Amino acid sequence: MPGISRRGKKMPTSPIRRLVPFAEEATKKGVHVYYLNIGQPDIKTPEVALEAIHNYNQTIVEYSHSAGNESYRRKLAASYRKHGIDVDYTDLMITTGGSEAIMFAFFSCLSNGEEIIIPEPFYANYYGFAVSAGVKVKAITSSIKDDFSLPSIAEFEQLITPKTKGILICNPNNPTGYLYSAEEMEQLRQLVKKHDLYLFSDEVYREFCYDGEKHISAMHLQDINQNVVMVDSVSKRYSECGVRIGSLVTKNKAVIETAMKFAQARLSPPGFGQIAGEASLDTPQSYFDHVYNEYIARRNFLVEGLNKIPGVYSPMPKGAFYTMAKLPVDDTDKFCQWILSEFDYEGQTVMMAPGSGFYKTPGLGKNQVRIAYVLKIEDLTKALVVLEKALEAYPGRIL
Amino acid sequence: MPGISRRGKKMPTSPIRRLVPFAEEATKKGVHVYYLNIGQPDIKTPEVALEAIHNYNQTIVEYSHSAGNESYRRKLAASYRKHGIDVDYTDLMITTGGSEAIMFAFFSCLSNGEEIIIPEPFYANYYGFAVSAGVKVKAITSSIKDDFSLPSIAEFEQLITPKTKGILICNPNNPTGYLYSAEEMEQLRQLVKKHDLYLFSDEVYREFCYDGEKHISAMHLQDINQNVVMVDSVSKRYSECGVRIGSLVTKNKAVIETAMKFAQARLSPPGFGQIAGEASLDTPQSYFDHVYNEYIARRNFLVEGLNKIPGVYSPMPKGAFYTMAKLPVDDTDKFCQWILSEFDYEGQTVMMAPGSGFYKTPGLGKNQVRIAYVLKIEDLTKALVVLEKALEAYPGRIL
Repeated sequence: MPGISRRGKKMPTSPIRRLVPFAEEATKKGVHVYYLNIGQPDIKTPEVALEAIHNYNQTIVEYSHSAGNESYRRKLAASYRKHGIDVDYTDLMITTGGSEAIMFAFFSCLSNGEEIIIPEPFYANYYGFAVSAGVKVKAITSSIKDDFSLPSIAEFEQLITPKTKGILICNPNNPTGYLYSAEEMEQLRQLVKKHDLYLFSDEVYREFCYDGEKHISAMHLQDINQNVVMVDSVSKRYSECGVRIGSLVTKNKAVIETAMKFAQARLSPPGFGQIAGEASLDTPQSYFDHVYNEYIARRNFLVEGLNKIPGVYSPMPKGAFYTMAKLPVDDTDKFCQWILSEFDYEGQTVMMAPGSGFYKTPGLGKNQVRIAYVLKIEDLTKALVVLEKALEAYPGRIL
Repeated sequence: MPGISRRGKKMPTSPIRRLVPFAEEATKKGVHVYYLNIGQPDIKTPEVALEAIHNYNQTIVEYSHSAGNESYRRKLAASYRKHGIDVDYTDLMITTGGSEAIMFAFFSCLSNGEEIIIPEPFYANYYGFAVSAGVKVKAITSSIKDDFSLPSIAEFEQLITPKTKGILICNPNNPTGYLYSAEEMEQLRQLVKKHDLYLFSDEVYREFCYDGEKHISAMHLQDINQNVVMVDSVSKRYSECGVRIGSLVTKNKAVIETAMKFAQARLSPPGFGQIAGEASLDTPQSYFDHVYNEYIARRNFLVEGLNKIPGVYSPMPKGAFYTMAKLPVDDTDKFCQWILSEFDYEGQTVMMAPGSGFYKTPGLGKNQVRIAYVLKIEDLTKALVVLEKALEAYPGRIL
């Protein structure tokens, strides 16, 4: 029997996946599980998107252009321009989710064995994509004490080697909800320019910025437009995660042309997803207002509720719909399993994502969990009660 | 400006893509182009698939399971069992087109720097996927003189090194239309077993077998089920190329589990595509009968027509909907450009895929073109006249 590949062995299984059987077991026992572990919102997909699907009127579902339908690319570019991102439709390509955009960016920009720096905690799948592409990830730790703000530039400088080719940020951040400030973005700009690095910027949560804070895109930064590769997705913006549509955006023509070769090899992005994505660009502002109000209410409720539980601390995130909270426990991998498999409060329990899965540095995140506020306040209310009761009962509690 | 990656530089641009601007230019001049270069059939998508899309009744387009919807996987496994492929739903995963299945197979089975053997001419994108995964392709030439039958096993043996990890076949074959015989499949079986290699088998054209010939799946072969990884797709079977749905099928649990880690990183396959793909499994037999009759008529018409043109030779392919034909010209890369840019017959011309794009060995395929019989006979009739007149007029004709 031929063996599997080195990269296959190296590829991580996410600690969330490890918990899935325990959640399934709890459900089988009749325990209701509140899923706070995932970024699957309960917000409805815009009507315009669903209507476009219902009204699909072609008789042959043909390949699209490898960069995506031109009508979609043109409208998407126009929508970016409204956000001060100066691109035309030739500066972007439609991808199969933001995931594929990251893969194409890595494939196009990074050779096997080269390095990127990512502030941790980070979206766990970045590491999987890096393993797929043979790219080495160097993590630079952001601290919950500083509410996960950007680590100092001096720390970045220490990690830069001749093999360092880029920096990857997620802004607003998954898993922390942190929104980078104008000052932090300027620091990154100078760093990237000084060392001529790529700045890969995952901006799929762009619409989710709170408290009047303004989102600063990497594409807004002056004088580094050949360095910036933006990754985007319709998944969260329109609550249509399942359509698998994203985009790769850059003013760097060599990168776009190279990414196109990878795009052509896989022929085209999903056809129906493109139809939903294009139609979603006509989503009325009232939809976003509703979603915004919903999330800000949820965030305020959740974070205030968390901070009222003895021993728990959550920063007040300015973006996305996650928070990384500190729990008074020995090990959140154990606690998140225990709460599913050995605990319930009035027939209810909670699934959360253990913090360790978002750190590359071994041992970090052991007292943190990522909580996604993708459920309505009624459910969050119950989930918070479960969490408080569980922390009281958990044998591994640390005071 | 940071440079692009080594793999990005190595990634090929297909010679078909190079011709696209010439075809666009011809169209602008008012010349009608018959597109015989691509595998985009003009056959309608089954009604059941389109209806399932029109009737989509969810309000949130959610992520699916990373391996695809369980209902789809169960039905798909059942459909394979009808073809004598003994699998259950845990032996397969739904992928984003056959393309992603190949990528996951390469990622899971092949380490950077390892080798696979592929009989050439081969589907050009295999090479692109190999470059993406850092895998080296060794080509073994099949000859038009033998109608592109499997090269001798002795030739395979000569290419096997300690780094050789697998053999990749496409059966029925794109670009040649060749269908491997029972004897050839047995030879491959023995070879794979002897050297403990993976046998990657792309069977997306399974339904397209003519003249009463039976398709033998790699999954049918005795005693090597840990070695076989089958790749499949709905694109051609149901003429729904744009939905981007395929599958990876293997009895090797280590491979499925490893591929799942790559699948989880990209979250899920396209949601609407899965709905179309699952519904397509209920396509009535009358649809396939119609398609079969259509393709066999087209094939017979095209191949007979080609062989009547002086200096042209085409084998009679037993499967898929392509033929690799020999033309009496100096260089089909030049000819295929010339016929688009400098020739028309009564306002019409033809786009074909130059043979060189399907060979890894430099210099091969220069007198071959791949012709896809994806157009109706009326159009094929006109296209053949254009081709004959063009060959008479082409300055680089070789007698």
